[in-house]
Amino acid sequence: MQLGIVVGRVTATRKDPNLVGTKLLITQPIQLNGKASSSGPVIAVDTVGAGIGEKVIYVSGSVATRGMSKKEAPVDAAIIGIIDTLEYEELEGVNL
Amino acid sequence: MQLGIVVGRVTATRKDPNLVGTKLLITQPIQLNGKASSSGPVIAVDTVGAGIGEKVIYVSGSVATRGMSKKEAPVDAAIIGIIDTLEYEELEGVNL
Amino acid sequence: MQLGIVVGRVTATRKDPNLVGTKLLITQPIQLNGKASSSGPVIAVDTVGAGIGEKVIYVSGSVATRGMSKKEAPVDAAIIGIIDTLEYEELEGVNL
Amino acid sequence: MQLGIVVGRVTATRKDPNLVGTKLLITQPIQLNGKASSSGPVIAVDTVGAGIGEKVIYVSGSVATRGMSKKEAPVDAAIIGIIDTLEYEELEGVNL
Amino acid sequence: MQLGIVVGRVTATRKDPNLVGTKLLITQPIQLNGKASSSGPVIAVDTVGAGIGEKVIYVSGSVATRGMSKKEAPVDAAIIGIIDTLEYEELEGVNL
Repeated sequence: MQLGIVVGRVTATRKDPNLVGTKLLITQPIQLNGKASSSGPVIAVDTVGAGIGEKVIYVSGSVATRGMSKKEAPVDAAIIGIIDTLEYEELEGVNL
Repeated sequence: MQLGIVVGRVTATRKDPNLVGTKLLITQPIQLNGKASSSGPVIAVDTVGAGIGEKVIYVSGSVATRGMSKKEAPVDAAIIGIIDTLEYEELEGVNL
Repeated sequence: MQLGIVVGRVTATRKDPNLVGTKLLITQPIQLNGKASSSGPVIAVDTVGAGIGEKVIYVSGSVATRGMSKKEAPVDAAIIGIIDTLEYEELEGVNL
Repeated sequence: MQLGIVVGRVTATRKDPNLVGTKLLITQPIQLNGKASSSGPVIAVDTVGAGIGEKVIYVSGSVATRGMSKKEAPVDAAIIGIIDTLEYEELEGVNL
Repeated sequence: MQLGIVVGRVTATRKDPNLVGTKLLITQPIQLNGKASSSGPVIAVDTVGAGIGEKVIYVSGSVATRGMSKKEAPVDAAIIGIIDTLEYEELEGVNL
């Protein structure tokens, strides 16, 4: 999984029927310090009630629909948790 | 999922039988501001009636055929929505 | 899917039994203009009778064996079409 | 699989029900010499009792839940071994 | 699939039960000329009897366990062939 921050939302009237009713969130991958990482935003389905500005955990690939009611939706990314805390240590020789 | 813009079409007479009748669209990944991102175009199957110049959402991986009639086609990318609007906020310290 | 050009072939006597009889083609990803892209070649199973110098469409991931007779082969890339034409437009602000 | 070092832990109260009780570890990919590689940390589920500072092997993609009791969890990365030793040779012309 | 060279081995006493008895090989991706590519090594399960210094073909993703006896192992990379020869042509305008 990756860390991200929800920055917005996509609306699409013409879409796959299995996406009707889903919330498509623009999610920017972030580093441990909360800054945006170099890779661009992904569009992830919200499965946990995430909102703009919240830091989240998102999952990629075919497992992304596991938290959705429509398991057969054509979806490759989903928000599966909202971060409370990140605890980590700066280990010697490991550059975070 | 990723944001993209449809820029063209590929035609192939010799192809997998399960691709007959599919529309193979050249789709350039884009940033939130609509500019092309640094990664090159992907060839995605159209499942929503997308046309040249339209901004779309596309999905990658084994779930890509979920919106196709031929679920067993050898396809790893599909357009699954046409973008109406992108709403997003420039969050402090997040570089979009 | 990605665009590529077939540049060669790999032979391997010691290999997974499900690969016996497959043609393993060295396939260089290319840009729309036909030049090699920056990522290196992949080894893709031929499912459409592709030859050296032909421009092709290849698919990646678990769906790659869908065009093979041995569906359970350990294969993550396959050539699934031979390109006739690429039609595309240079859209304003989109850098192809 | 990739080599990594466990550097911390994520806590999330609001999360997918299938993640309740899982340990979500911040795992930094490392090179053979133990230094961090250039790609950022991943969040991986612990399936082998890994702790902070331990060097581990982690797996990515849909197979990640195979070592978990909840096989249907929306998880795309898991720690599946704790490294005892890495033995390798500097081969001529191969730059590790 | 990708080309690689086996450079070493990982040992792990604490690991997923389905990995007991597997050979976990440190495999460096290589270019057609045999030089290491820029991406770092992967840990791949040996399914064909590969040894240190041998040039191999490896597969990534959920299909990696297809050549293993334990199909449910949490494995995302496997060596599935040992290269005899690479035949390829320098095509005009294609930069290998």
